[in-house]
Amino acid sequence: MSEPIPPAGLAPTRDVAVTRVAAGGVTRTRDVAAAEEPLDVRLHGRSFAVIMRTPGEDRALAAGFLLSERIIRSAADIGAIEHCRHPDQSRAHHVVEVFLVGDAAARVPALLEQRRQVIANSSCGICGRATIDELAADIPPLAATQSMTLDAIRSLPARLRACQSRFDETGGLHGAALFSRDGTLMGSAEDVGRHNAVDKVLGAFLLEDGTGRSPLTDGTALMVSGRVSFEIVQKAWLGGIQIVAAISAPTSLAIELAGAAGITLLGFVRESSLNIYTHTARIEGV
Amino acid sequence: MSEPIPPAGLAPTRDVAVTRVAAGGVTRTRDVAAAEEPLDVRLHGRSFAVIMRTPGEDRALAAGFLLSERIIRSAADIGAIEHCRHPDQSRAHHVVEVFLVGDAAARVPALLEQRRQVIANSSCGICGRATIDELAADIPPLAATQSMTLDAIRSLPARLRACQSRFDETGGLHGAALFSRDGTLMGSAEDVGRHNAVDKVLGAFLLEDGTGRSPLTDGTALMVSGRVSFEIVQKAWLGGIQIVAAISAPTSLAIELAGAAGITLLGFVRESSLNIYTHTARIEGV
Repeated sequence: MSEPIPPAGLAPTRDVAVTRVAAGGVTRTRDVAAAEEPLDVRLHGRSFAVIMRTPGEDRALAAGFLLSERIIRSAADIGAIEHCRHPDQSRAHHVVEVFLVGDAAARVPALLEQRRQVIANSSCGICGRATIDELAADIPPLAATQSMTLDAIRSLPARLRACQSRFDETGGLHGAALFSRDGTLMGSAEDVGRHNAVDKVLGAFLLEDGTGRSPLTDGTALMVSGRVSFEIVQKAWLGGIQIVAAISAPTSLAIELAGAAGITLLGFVRESSLNIYTHTARIEGV
Repeated sequence: MSEPIPPAGLAPTRDVAVTRVAAGGVTRTRDVAAAEEPLDVRLHGRSFAVIMRTPGEDRALAAGFLLSERIIRSAADIGAIEHCRHPDQSRAHHVVEVFLVGDAAARVPALLEQRRQVIANSSCGICGRATIDELAADIPPLAATQSMTLDAIRSLPARLRACQSRFDETGGLHGAALFSRDGTLMGSAEDVGRHNAVDKVLGAFLLEDGTGRSPLTDGTALMVSGRVSFEIVQKAWLGGIQIVAAISAPTSLAIELAGAAGITLLGFVRESSLNIYTHTARIEGV
């Protein structure tokens, strides 16, 4: 690709601090997380979609997205496609400007009107760094009123796995489960969408509660079967869940949001080892 | 949960036909795929969002989704939440009606206006069975002008893996790659969003092509690192890619769309074994 080399901070990966717990003991070290940042795709100067993506190949992403959304049919519909020329390149690299030609160009005003309120993500929900600021302004960080032992945390992957009966059948479903402080299962769900599995777990508690209180006061840890994006952490924050643990990796923005939310975020959780990215104090024995 | 038992066809998994290739030979058999179907979440009788989900726990999903979207703050905001009462339960079970009370209810008209055009999915894009019909009306199924040997297919997982340098660092990125008929790598991308990885691969070809032809005439097979949802197949169809292969499982709707699109869909692809779900004839040696 002929894209310019991105300025520092726009790399596809990000260096993050991590507390690593393994057989050899606990070490404070650095790790590399996949970067997750919003890309604003503009049509004829107006925002058409915001996509949560890993920086890099942004022009290709915008072109492929417009093909997938049936805004263009071939390269011939594209007049120009490039990063914003704003002098502040740290912002401009998160904006791709697209100008269409011919019939495709003629459809742009109607498209923009239709999509005026639409935000498209790499997964469902709302987007990015602006959201962190907005959430932080509205919702206080979660207080550290709960904690969990390292032994209880280590038991979670096997306990989650035991709930994933449909994964056993299909190999094609994400799992999420909520556990109390001692590792007791409080609820679980499976879904083709990883966000849906979390929504189902939290929503079930909401429906069972009729008191108007926060429905999840006894739910301490949310465990998910795959990776943790920004939005899983956002859902936990809104649900009041203080610990989020995942079998696989968190994204850079998930770590950043967990920091702001006062949430303890754990990744690569195994019986023998795990990583703690934020608010380590809730994990007893570390 | 207290949800009624869903009618047949609304189960969380679906029985599918599959051609299984393994050491013992080729067998035509049945397999179980995760079901993927749209759920229409209605607020005060009007459509608020369509979520691609696995059927089941739909009321919990709707409640959790509304919490995540900050439409409600607690169970106290919900007046009623239930499946549509339409006599045709095969449709009604894909609709959840939500009625809010108090302050939350007062915000509904403005919310509906804002969200009028929004469709939220378990992953980005557009939704469901209506889309299959719409796409099928607009775009002809792909002709079987290309094929690939079983040996070339078997080589793809290792070839994709070799492109995933950032996954090696982070464990947190999806990969996608396009291969020619003989298994030669034509392009690859990594992203936190699995759909973005595919858009980047297809978009890069779009940008390199200046001829106005279909940009992907020599791309035979798209390989993805994870699962295959409906939308990956949709992107392949719009890009003209005849074979889609995945390391992991396809959803029910991905299989259905591949059938309609004339796309050969493969899942659980390994060097030693693989499943072919649709249009088997493109795979030589089966």
